[in-house]
Amino acid sequence: MRSRPIGVFDSGLGGLTVFKALAARLPHESLIYFGDTAHVPYGSKSKEAVTAFSISIGRFLEKQGIKALVVACNTASALALKDLKRALRVPVLGVIEPGVRAVGREYDRSHGAGRISPPGGAPVRARSVGVIATEATIASGAYQSALRLRDPRLRVVGAACPLFVPLVEEGWWSHRVTREVAAEYVRPLKKARIDTLILGCTHYPLLKGVLRSVVGRSVRLIDSAEETARATERLLVSESLARTTGTPKHRFFASDGPDRFLRLARRFLGVGVDTVEIRRLD
Amino acid sequence: MRSRPIGVFDSGLGGLTVFKALAARLPHESLIYFGDTAHVPYGSKSKEAVTAFSISIGRFLEKQGIKALVVACNTASALALKDLKRALRVPVLGVIEPGVRAVGREYDRSHGAGRISPPGGAPVRARSVGVIATEATIASGAYQSALRLRDPRLRVVGAACPLFVPLVEEGWWSHRVTREVAAEYVRPLKKARIDTLILGCTHYPLLKGVLRSVVGRSVRLIDSAEETARATERLLVSESLARTTGTPKHRFFASDGPDRFLRLARRFLGVGVDTVEIRRLD
Repeated sequence: MRSRPIGVFDSGLGGLTVFKALAARLPHESLIYFGDTAHVPYGSKSKEAVTAFSISIGRFLEKQGIKALVVACNTASALALKDLKRALRVPVLGVIEPGVRAVGREYDRSHGAGRISPPGGAPVRARSVGVIATEATIASGAYQSALRLRDPRLRVVGAACPLFVPLVEEGWWSHRVTREVAAEYVRPLKKARIDTLILGCTHYPLLKGVLRSVVGRSVRLIDSAEETARATERLLVSESLARTTGTPKHRFFASDGPDRFLRLARRFLGVGVDTVEIRRLD
Repeated sequence: MRSRPIGVFDSGLGGLTVFKALAARLPHESLIYFGDTAHVPYGSKSKEAVTAFSISIGRFLEKQGIKALVVACNTASALALKDLKRALRVPVLGVIEPGVRAVGREYDRSHGAGRISPPGGAPVRARSVGVIATEATIASGAYQSALRLRDPRLRVVGAACPLFVPLVEEGWWSHRVTREVAAEYVRPLKKARIDTLILGCTHYPLLKGVLRSVVGRSVRLIDSAEETARATERLLVSESLARTTGTPKHRFFASDGPDRFLRLARRFLGVGVDTVEIRRLD
């Protein structure tokens, strides 16, 4: 069981940022990635559609013998996680909880775990957290409710950033246009004086430089990719599923392609992908 | 037969610019529109995928009793038109031929039909035509070969503009960012000193203002939507299928939605759409 691969899926290539973080943190685990490039992007689609796509992919990956599934897509995590957990037998992990947990952890660290007021006694001002994500993720309210559940004092401001995914896929990671678009999208978040910004889409870590420059150095950026790899490690250890020796074998699947997948994969992974296997799941 | 509707389809909402032109030119024809919003956009997908999606939609529309099919999507016209014509019984019309024909017509008008040299006798300088479209349309070479077939003297320069569709869908039709993106995309076309620019994607007519400002007043803009409506009229007349009296009844279908479809339709049509019927064709 331990030697089985972990399934990782996304609407397209953005989830490769999570794949990369998983491969770095869990160097002995084999990973099977599925990019739903026939339906990409999920961020502007309905809950029904995203749930149907996600369950097809989850079932396909279960047939490949995975021991756990990482939903490396914020939109699918926001809209389809509950249904996916019901539909599959393997443990399923999304990217939203890990990001939210990281906000809490940082909070506890700076103010003392479990305290309502800091050691000095004065009440702690509720922190202000910004979330940037796709239209569908923001509209779902998934981050907003998970954050408030964790700490009702948090002020949460969300902003949909529909142009970020196409800008990343165009390779304009530090282009002047991207900076202008980012400045416009984060304006309401700056106005709300956020101190933490969750990158609520797996494409966005590639825009960290631009985002840092528009929100300023004082705002903490939370990258779901790294947090999700950490959460996956915890899950595997707690379920006694972790593989701690041996050389991993990774496989890549996509529902359309393969040209675009192979061309863009290097941007997300930093290394090239040799082969992507095409599977239409419709 | 004449009273049957015309089918019109696109990957999403862009084809509504063609729908609008058809409704204006053929006010007695009923139209059935299908927007493949579960798979949108087509512009970054493979020939195989776009062909499979297009044939499913064509068959669905044939079952609705259409008398002709207008492929109101440049990517589907570039990648799937031949296969669609083979798969369906009704006449099928794409958006590329009409745009190309318009270039030729303007050319003939300014230089005398069928002449290689103008009345004065001096040889006519080959004109330079720019084509802006999605990645898949440009990569297919469909415009380039159709234009050269029509007039081998034409110089053709294509530019893929992957950010235009998301910018239109974001509603940033005359935004400063859109102007900057447009300036960057058309730079090679301006360098090639184009005198004509084909808007090779049904979303682009909404960017006419921005495009006009970046290419200058001397460049002729060719809008496939209007040209396609004209070509559809010719087809219906020649096949004795035109309906010239009576009140039309339009229907709208989408493969995902309906919220986004209903919200964005007004942008493309200028009027709202009351109902969109959802059909998953997977």
